[in-house]
Amino acid sequence: MPNQQRYGAGIWHFATYVDRYATDGYGDPRSILDAIDLAGQVRDLSVVDLNYPFFGGEFSNEQVGEALERNGLSVIGITPEIYTRTFAKGSFTNPDAGVRRLAHELITEAAGVVRHFGADYVKLWPGQDGWDYPFQVDHHSLWKASLDGVAELASDNPDLKFVIEYKPREPRVHMSFDSVSRTLLGIERIGLPNVGILLDFGHSLFGGESPADAAQLAIDYGRLFGMDVNDNLRGWDDDLVAGTIHPIELFEFFYTLDKNDWHGVWQLDQFPFREDSVEAANTAIDFLKLIQRALGKLDVDGIREAQSNHDALTALKLAQKALFSSY
Amino acid sequence: MPNQQRYGAGIWHFATYVDRYATDGYGDPRSILDAIDLAGQVRDLSVVDLNYPFFGGEFSNEQVGEALERNGLSVIGITPEIYTRTFAKGSFTNPDAGVRRLAHELITEAAGVVRHFGADYVKLWPGQDGWDYPFQVDHHSLWKASLDGVAELASDNPDLKFVIEYKPREPRVHMSFDSVSRTLLGIERIGLPNVGILLDFGHSLFGGESPADAAQLAIDYGRLFGMDVNDNLRGWDDDLVAGTIHPIELFEFFYTLDKNDWHGVWQLDQFPFREDSVEAANTAIDFLKLIQRALGKLDVDGIREAQSNHDALTALKLAQKALFSSY
Amino acid sequence: MPNQQRYGAGIWHFATYVDRYATDGYGDPRSILDAIDLAGQVRDLSVVDLNYPFFGGEFSNEQVGEALERNGLSVIGITPEIYTRTFAKGSFTNPDAGVRRLAHELITEAAGVVRHFGADYVKLWPGQDGWDYPFQVDHHSLWKASLDGVAELASDNPDLKFVIEYKPREPRVHMSFDSVSRTLLGIERIGLPNVGILLDFGHSLFGGESPADAAQLAIDYGRLFGMDVNDNLRGWDDDLVAGTIHPIELFEFFYTLDKNDWHGVWQLDQFPFREDSVEAANTAIDFLKLIQRALGKLDVDGIREAQSNHDALTALKLAQKALFSSY
Amino acid sequence: MPNQQRYGAGIWHFATYVDRYATDGYGDPRSILDAIDLAGQVRDLSVVDLNYPFFGGEFSNEQVGEALERNGLSVIGITPEIYTRTFAKGSFTNPDAGVRRLAHELITEAAGVVRHFGADYVKLWPGQDGWDYPFQVDHHSLWKASLDGVAELASDNPDLKFVIEYKPREPRVHMSFDSVSRTLLGIERIGLPNVGILLDFGHSLFGGESPADAAQLAIDYGRLFGMDVNDNLRGWDDDLVAGTIHPIELFEFFYTLDKNDWHGVWQLDQFPFREDSVEAANTAIDFLKLIQRALGKLDVDGIREAQSNHDALTALKLAQKALFSSY
Repeated sequence: MPNQQRYGAGIWHFATYVDRYATDGYGDPRSILDAIDLAGQVRDLSVVDLNYPFFGGEFSNEQVGEALERNGLSVIGITPEIYTRTFAKGSFTNPDAGVRRLAHELITEAAGVVRHFGADYVKLWPGQDGWDYPFQVDHHSLWKASLDGVAELASDNPDLKFVIEYKPREPRVHMSFDSVSRTLLGIERIGLPNVGILLDFGHSLFGGESPADAAQLAIDYGRLFGMDVNDNLRGWDDDLVAGTIHPIELFEFFYTLDKNDWHGVWQLDQFPFREDSVEAANTAIDFLKLIQRALGKLDVDGIREAQSNHDALTALKLAQKALFSSY
Repeated sequence: MPNQQRYGAGIWHFATYVDRYATDGYGDPRSILDAIDLAGQVRDLSVVDLNYPFFGGEFSNEQVGEALERNGLSVIGITPEIYTRTFAKGSFTNPDAGVRRLAHELITEAAGVVRHFGADYVKLWPGQDGWDYPFQVDHHSLWKASLDGVAELASDNPDLKFVIEYKPREPRVHMSFDSVSRTLLGIERIGLPNVGILLDFGHSLFGGESPADAAQLAIDYGRLFGMDVNDNLRGWDDDLVAGTIHPIELFEFFYTLDKNDWHGVWQLDQFPFREDSVEAANTAIDFLKLIQRALGKLDVDGIREAQSNHDALTALKLAQKALFSSY
Repeated sequence: MPNQQRYGAGIWHFATYVDRYATDGYGDPRSILDAIDLAGQVRDLSVVDLNYPFFGGEFSNEQVGEALERNGLSVIGITPEIYTRTFAKGSFTNPDAGVRRLAHELITEAAGVVRHFGADYVKLWPGQDGWDYPFQVDHHSLWKASLDGVAELASDNPDLKFVIEYKPREPRVHMSFDSVSRTLLGIERIGLPNVGILLDFGHSLFGGESPADAAQLAIDYGRLFGMDVNDNLRGWDDDLVAGTIHPIELFEFFYTLDKNDWHGVWQLDQFPFREDSVEAANTAIDFLKLIQRALGKLDVDGIREAQSNHDALTALKLAQKALFSSY
Repeated sequence: MPNQQRYGAGIWHFATYVDRYATDGYGDPRSILDAIDLAGQVRDLSVVDLNYPFFGGEFSNEQVGEALERNGLSVIGITPEIYTRTFAKGSFTNPDAGVRRLAHELITEAAGVVRHFGADYVKLWPGQDGWDYPFQVDHHSLWKASLDGVAELASDNPDLKFVIEYKPREPRVHMSFDSVSRTLLGIERIGLPNVGILLDFGHSLFGGESPADAAQLAIDYGRLFGMDVNDNLRGWDDDLVAGTIHPIELFEFFYTLDKNDWHGVWQLDQFPFREDSVEAANTAIDFLKLIQRALGKLDVDGIREAQSNHDALTALKLAQKALFSSY
């Protein structure tokens, strides 16, 4: 474990939200500059992932850069918004070739922003790519289009990393990149070194995975390029505050990263619809620090010995001992 | 079965939608008048349920009434929007007494609109009433506030019916009125004759209920005041087109209504995010007519005999025979 | 909180199991006497719930009593096995009146065993009462039979308590007593004072409830007669070791009992298929003691204040502070 | 579509079952010979998949062969029972090398039975391979052991096909081969031509997949070696009668097979716990024939056109037209 763990967040953590019911939003609209200023108030935040185009107005990279600088933040990734109205029927898989082209162009622009900020990656979250109904799509063509779209980008921009954030569903009833395994299968098929996975802890739980197992698998393929955390009740992508529902699985997830010497940024992807967003981030990061302390205490040899016997009770007792004494 | 089954829809079926990702909406905004004109294009629609306040502008009851009239539609119910920004932390259960009062006032206004249009009921869908996290609320107080709020309205307006539409969750992670049983328990506690249930087929599936069983229970308590249909994958309130996923359970649901001589309007509560809304309604109503034909063919005595033995195979074969020959 | 919290377990915790795949069982068969001797090895177990008939041989009440005595255990309840082959199509709701009679007789015998041991209740878990398929049953009749069966028993045995343990499903695809609300609705309809609920924490999670809310509701109706704990992934009744997945919700559950001055036995209902059953019980009880310590530390006034504002973050921070420092 | 579609079933369809509650079973025990004689009573069954060792007694291949012959049945596959007591902690992934060896030996014996009967494949269903708890296993090692075990068998027996039947869970809380994508990822890693997938329609639904999409993906990798059908409520592997819950997705599944010229046996994997097993098979096969008729009627060009536009409503209307007129 590094002495100084870095923390990050998607900048949308500090936006306000709408949904299909509260169409007037859960608060006054905020621009990306407002959101950056809020992010700056979080006690231990170092990096942010920025939506692109920048929301809430017409802002230049320079304006955004100034806001970041005054808040001591740098950029880890750029998330092109390939899931808004234009892309309602898909980005890479849109039935309209013109819209697929628009997606390509928007992501290419986002790649430029990554270069501008010296960020780590372009994040691809094709949330509208998939289907809603049986019989709606030709599954062979849909999956091919998903991979072709990503491959073209990765091939055009060999200097950059592209990370795919999979999720089982929402807004589509079924998303094409739905799981760690499906995404790795696609990445292996694409066969380029600069495509990887951004593993969202909550998406993994929601998809019935063990996030620790998903992380291990992505690491074993050399494709774990980023991660973020939050929590949920396993039936939906609730984007609750990390650690509030599944502290033990969160601990196992970080234990797995640590064991594999994976030392990237620990990011938040939370949607505090009804909470103060700065407090929501502080609460999560405080819990992540608790987990760091617990990792420091954990009897790793004991865990390994227990795991070699698939001895759940011993392993859990060791995990409990470290975790429930680390406040 | 009546000779002339009537069909209805929530007017939001003909709106456009936003969600937390496509914040610019799945189409151009429409006013309630636009939506009514679209509803008028559906082949067999007789009644609509209207959101209140009327969306998309400042419209009088008279303007709405004209739009309805030119489209041959009447009003079955009014749905006050007690789930928008003001009510993000709840309507009846809001921690702020002032907001609870606003909810009461808005619903009281909606009651006036019910009277104006001679509609059947005020529909209460308190989607923001509930909780997101463990330890967030005092469950005793929360439930009491839910019941007190409804009781006060029903008591103040004895000339009107109030229907509660339960749902397990969304937008709240957990809704207070989450199931048919919980809602009936609350209604019995309130003890007033003018409070009932609007049973949404999809909410029932989503909650792990059998919609047929839920309907029977509500009928047995004399509280089934309305219903609507749609479809989903049981894990979320997808509001898909009725009959596209669960045709057999939909058939059992209508069989149960018919058996109990429940002959209200068959309504749609669908959200065609990416589909033509008129076609989505036509497709659903065509399927409901198929179900009507199947009900006419069904060997009801055979079903009853099979059910008296809990003989699933015989009952299903009779149901299949009627349903899969009724196109 | 009492100075000396008492712990209990269903005696099946110490049996071995079969399932539809491992038909030769997860270990050598044990008799109820073997199981009692294992229960006696658990560090802090005071009471057990016994299946009836006694499994693994022909044993008299006296023989069982001796085994209990030598292990320092007493009996909290008797669980008649109304879910074995005879009752595969239901106990109270069996389509065959003769089988319904057998269920009544078996439970009546079990009532005698309750009296013999001075136990607290007869536990009713009608796991085969329900349905598997759409169209299989007449839902009105099925529910009526469920209530009639319980009512007759409670009326015949006014000196005893009967507790219903609800569960969404398994072995039936849908169980009649599926939720806290449905069960309370039924109990209210029966209208007798000696029928209550045994709330299983895992069944509540599995059913999409908040166990704390379910407990509060049952208490508010004066019907929480017993409880047991375990854990699962919310999608099935996994009967895992308590505290291993949902420690925070478990803490909220006990907080709710404590707040309401509910001071019964804290019981385990776990199925350690592949674990040592004594160690599985010790691990759970150790965690329950951790929760007791956390309850002692919890800033209850702070929680109440936060809950009065539905302030999840403050409430959770207080809960974390107590829980994650109590190892 | 071939003129003469062949139907098959797992022979366990005609066994009786136990579960953790009805430990005395849902009926009198049957031997594999009894089960074969029942299978022979099904109207249109051609092939069966046999558990190995043969259940219910000591039977030679010859005795089983005679029973098959007198019932006009042949063998499609052999399923070695690598999920009974010996293998409770796993077969390929068992922490004990000796048990892993036993699994290898049992499957090797089963390979001999495949050769004896001229069957198509050895079926691997490692239902005990996986984990129950967080922290229980080292995920890297567990997955490696899963692949090593299968690779060794496939390498030792290049004349035979091995099919892996994936499932999300049960009896393990999480199975290693949990999804179509994970299984394909593993098969690609193994890199041998004689390892493929047996796709169970219900496992796919249970895992949140679209079975049609899963079939397409397995076909695109050249790995769809077998399939079977049944139905469930998406939350568990209920093994209900095919077509009784999800007829439209079942239709899409067979449409996908047909479109890809995949013309293997249509098999049943049902567990009629409380139903007559011959009738359960007849009911399912009758519905599969209905689907065959519907495939013959389907406007395939219309479907393709609609799918090229992701036009769900048109595609569904065409599917409904064919399916609901084919009784």
